[in-house]
Amino acid sequence: MTQRLRLNKNADRRLKAGHLWIYSNEVDIKETPLKDFAAGETALVEASNGRTLGVAYVNPHSLICARVMSRDPEMRLDRSLFVHRFNQALALRQRLFDQPFYRLIHGEGDLLPGLVIDRFGDVVVVQLNTAGMQVLAEDIVDALEKVLKPSAIVFRNDTGGRRQEGLEAQVEVAKGTLPDEVLLEENGVRFVVPVIDGQKTGWFFDHRVNRAWLNSQVAGKRVLDVFSYVGGWGVQAAASGASEVLCVDGSGPALEQVARNAELNGVQEQVAIGEGDAFEALAALKADGEQFDVVILDPPAFIKKRKDINNGERAYARLNREAMRLLGRDGLLMTASCSMHLAPERLMDVVRGAVRHQDRHGQVIFQGHQGPDHPVHPAIPETSYLKALGVRVFRD
Amino acid sequence: MTQRLRLNKNADRRLKAGHLWIYSNEVDIKETPLKDFAAGETALVEASNGRTLGVAYVNPHSLICARVMSRDPEMRLDRSLFVHRFNQALALRQRLFDQPFYRLIHGEGDLLPGLVIDRFGDVVVVQLNTAGMQVLAEDIVDALEKVLKPSAIVFRNDTGGRRQEGLEAQVEVAKGTLPDEVLLEENGVRFVVPVIDGQKTGWFFDHRVNRAWLNSQVAGKRVLDVFSYVGGWGVQAAASGASEVLCVDGSGPALEQVARNAELNGVQEQVAIGEGDAFEALAALKADGEQFDVVILDPPAFIKKRKDINNGERAYARLNREAMRLLGRDGLLMTASCSMHLAPERLMDVVRGAVRHQDRHGQVIFQGHQGPDHPVHPAIPETSYLKALGVRVFRD
Repeated sequence: MTQRLRLNKNADRRLKAGHLWIYSNEVDIKETPLKDFAAGETALVEASNGRTLGVAYVNPHSLICARVMSRDPEMRLDRSLFVHRFNQALALRQRLFDQPFYRLIHGEGDLLPGLVIDRFGDVVVVQLNTAGMQVLAEDIVDALEKVLKPSAIVFRNDTGGRRQEGLEAQVEVAKGTLPDEVLLEENGVRFVVPVIDGQKTGWFFDHRVNRAWLNSQVAGKRVLDVFSYVGGWGVQAAASGASEVLCVDGSGPALEQVARNAELNGVQEQVAIGEGDAFEALAALKADGEQFDVVILDPPAFIKKRKDINNGERAYARLNREAMRLLGRDGLLMTASCSMHLAPERLMDVVRGAVRHQDRHGQVIFQGHQGPDHPVHPAIPETSYLKALGVRVFRD
Repeated sequence: MTQRLRLNKNADRRLKAGHLWIYSNEVDIKETPLKDFAAGETALVEASNGRTLGVAYVNPHSLICARVMSRDPEMRLDRSLFVHRFNQALALRQRLFDQPFYRLIHGEGDLLPGLVIDRFGDVVVVQLNTAGMQVLAEDIVDALEKVLKPSAIVFRNDTGGRRQEGLEAQVEVAKGTLPDEVLLEENGVRFVVPVIDGQKTGWFFDHRVNRAWLNSQVAGKRVLDVFSYVGGWGVQAAASGASEVLCVDGSGPALEQVARNAELNGVQEQVAIGEGDAFEALAALKADGEQFDVVILDPPAFIKKRKDINNGERAYARLNREAMRLLGRDGLLMTASCSMHLAPERLMDVVRGAVRHQDRHGQVIFQGHQGPDHPVHPAIPETSYLKALGVRVFRD
């Protein structure tokens, strides 16, 4: 029989408002000790008055000790639930996109806490980020086969979140065979995606809309792409008419892929690469008197946890200041942050500070967010993490 | 000689951070009494230590008693400053748009506090929202003639802000002659704009990007456009392939223009109009069992002043709840707010509440803002006011 997980008095408020998480200090551990649950075990969540609130999976070792999978207490966490949710998610993506390249499941935003699935045509990359999802791995694979019939299913189970859940890293082809190169098209530009050894699932679909906007602004421009990774921004800029693009990244293999991706789109003449630390590269470019019309800053998350907010904000501020020095008289800065803990108004303030520091003027002409294949759950602020600002920087 | 306006100790902080406003309680009125200034008079702003901070115009009767026009103390507020700033603003718009239909000057966002100029081809509509700008009216008209050579310049000086500045309403053709119909094109759809007797300058350019996104989502859909005004959203939806659009507005003349605009684009068969109060119309549609695939909510500002926040939020909540009841099983809600005092996360919470109220699920797949011809000044949060959320609403 399914165990029950009882909440403390008033601890059901967040769930009632629509959120899906339960923190360990919200559980009535006298009535239902967390230690009685195995990691990933299913439970019926009940309010302090005994009313059933829904079905969740539990991890007694995690601060978020349970995540609700359904408000219907009769719902079983099995293949058919995943088939249903995958179809629901697929219907949205098929309405949004002409081609099968997108995030199919964005965790809580698609009502599947702890699960991320990116689709690259016939290749599907899965991240199981919680013990609850790990336990359901087989049902997930079966449901994917039923809904998508992919030629390969890859597990990229090597996220930081897994360690907190007490899970091992696991990267493998779970089903089928990977082709020599996994390909995708975004905004009309083609890319090879390193699904096995790249960052995260191999590609960041979340900036699709922001890149599309930037593509409309780069014709004839000299562009610097800092933290370029495999060239998502830079190669698209070149393919959109930028006269010259310099991609800077700390990873040699990522830069090799930039070159490969540039070639794939016939813009190898326009795309140069530079390996090195971003801050050092910015300083060196400044020392060399280099100037750019457009600078793109899409760094990794500088703020991973709440306690890093102050240090992280300082890092964003320094990065944006250094980058802005490289902009010509009437330039465009595209600055992004994927740190959920950096509030949108704080990124705006980072821009403000950098502009003032240079005694220039700024006009924010674009405010971007994660693309529509990363739906935000309106009750879960944590599902909204990506910010991008397009800023005209000029001297009056 | 130009009078000096001295600030209290530490009252220069906001200006140093980049903001352009001075509040009346920040002025050292012993040293420089506000009553010594005429409404709209130019002043040199100085910190409490006597250091000059810039040139501003003053209104002793206004809470925002001065607005900085330049940080260069030598700058004269005359035609040549306006010519310079107009050219700067024009350069941005010409980079952004193929056609001459846009907001040319977005007040502080274009470093011209209190001035709004919308361009409809050869016709420009000017709003002078402060006494300072009123005093400079002639220079503004002269500069516009030099930079744009428009066939007509219209003053729509009938904004609420003018009353607070002690200014009379004034609507007139200041120069040239208005054509019988003023036309514009937005997202490929044509409209007649009531520049003399419509809302604000006659048209809301700020939603251009949000409408473009919605246009991509409406093919074959049944659409309800609440607060339709002259059909900016609804007629574009019909022109983008919506099977049926109902435009609801409280203004008969606005609805006549909806019909005219539908005709102009050959979609009069797809566009119906309904006159009435929005809340009553929503209730009546519900009573009739009507359902829509897409509902658009673009109400006037429910929160004009800080003190209206609570009542305003309740009004947004009620509106969104009522509208959501009209959505079919898998529908799309486009909900907007132009209230600067409604924080983006509060609109998200309005959506959350409406979704929960219906026991449905929501996925926010679009977060929109004002278009790029309404640049946000990074130091002036007040310049960022428009929010739009695209929400998939479904039953699990």
